[in-house]
Amino acid sequence: MKKTIGIIGGMGPLATCDLFQKIINLTDASCDQEHIRVLIDNNTCIPDRTAAILGRGEDPVAQMVDSAKKLSQIGADVLIMPCNTAHYFHERVSKEVDVPLLHMIDETAAAVKNKGITRVGLLATDGTVRSGVYARAFEQVGVEMLTPSSEGQKAVMGMIYDGVKAGNYDLDLSGFRNAMKELLDAGAETLILGCTELPVAFQMFDFNEPHIDPTAILAAAAIRFVGGKLKENV
Amino acid sequence: MKKTIGIIGGMGPLATCDLFQKIINLTDASCDQEHIRVLIDNNTCIPDRTAAILGRGEDPVAQMVDSAKKLSQIGADVLIMPCNTAHYFHERVSKEVDVPLLHMIDETAAAVKNKGITRVGLLATDGTVRSGVYARAFEQVGVEMLTPSSEGQKAVMGMIYDGVKAGNYDLDLSGFRNAMKELLDAGAETLILGCTELPVAFQMFDFNEPHIDPTAILAAAAIRFVGGKLKENV
Repeated sequence: MKKTIGIIGGMGPLATCDLFQKIINLTDASCDQEHIRVLIDNNTCIPDRTAAILGRGEDPVAQMVDSAKKLSQIGADVLIMPCNTAHYFHERVSKEVDVPLLHMIDETAAAVKNKGITRVGLLATDGTVRSGVYARAFEQVGVEMLTPSSEGQKAVMGMIYDGVKAGNYDLDLSGFRNAMKELLDAGAETLILGCTELPVAFQMFDFNEPHIDPTAILAAAAIRFVGGKLKENV
Repeated sequence: MKKTIGIIGGMGPLATCDLFQKIINLTDASCDQEHIRVLIDNNTCIPDRTAAILGRGEDPVAQMVDSAKKLSQIGADVLIMPCNTAHYFHERVSKEVDVPLLHMIDETAAAVKNKGITRVGLLATDGTVRSGVYARAFEQVGVEMLTPSSEGQKAVMGMIYDGVKAGNYDLDLSGFRNAMKELLDAGAETLILGCTELPVAFQMFDFNEPHIDPTAILAAAAIRFVGGKLKENV
């Protein structure tokens, strides 16, 4: 029986599609049947994670657990979720299911450490920044992490919500460009795309600043977990 | 309860991803929660459809039904499958599940008829052409369908297998261009991209011949079925 990856998705939909595409593109396969079986619940009933962390919205855990249970019920051997902010709730979801739920942020910190990088800049939602999930993960591996100024942080949120989630190709990009420059000028060797909408933004707007994509790292970790063949080293 | 789309996928994985992305991009939504819930089984255990039709491979129906049942079991209200050739087995899969399985090829024929088009040219694999699925669908709605000459058909197969599937940007395009010209010269008002690799070919090589993309029509039909808001008329 083929080992199967389950994706707790919908946080958001394009990020889910991006993770799926990365799993396909990173798998060394020459026909349909050599690819990995992937089950996806693009569960758009999951309430906003940032709103919940900031105490302004419904707890998303019940819906996340609903997806996790459905996916394991129909055969997922391992679960992943393409939403950084959602990892604030990782432990509460993980303990409700019998299959492992990989941790994108811990995988990313380990990969950064592995590359010999000592200082990174974090681009993420207010919820992810405040939740401290990345700060904790990088502290554990001894990598310094910088965050944007409050003005820069506003521009990052604008890119995520008014740009990618709204599908708006006409967004004014100057604030976001400044936020990236600020972090690189302060000595960050690379930028962590700590929101799954940001790899989408890098494609939409063709940015070429040095960056690390946790979605690609998670895709590779999941492929390895189910015993798939990786096309390249991520 | 949100109505949910289920995708019997893996035929192939990139076509599955393309359909998922078209559903997202065609939905008029301004936040995650306004998007449609989509369940996907990227079931790469489904045997090759063309091989089965030509009597050289395993029957794919059992695996297609497995996916259909799993998806309806966890909440799909309607099923779709992004593979033209797979529609040869539509009836056998459809009768095994309680939820409707939309028919991409019938939806395409209806959409063509709706646009007032009276003659189309079919670009598809040998398997799809020989199975007669498009010929039957267009006959039912009274639209004339032209197919390429045997030389043109070879060029279409070359584009699909040596061009797109091989990721070969250096392919000699003259044969494929001739195949399209031949159909248009014979009076086809538009070309049906009757293989899920062909929308990719149109992007890769920037063709601008008039065409209709059945994957986009299927995405729109599924969105309408679950009561979602369409961004644009497809």
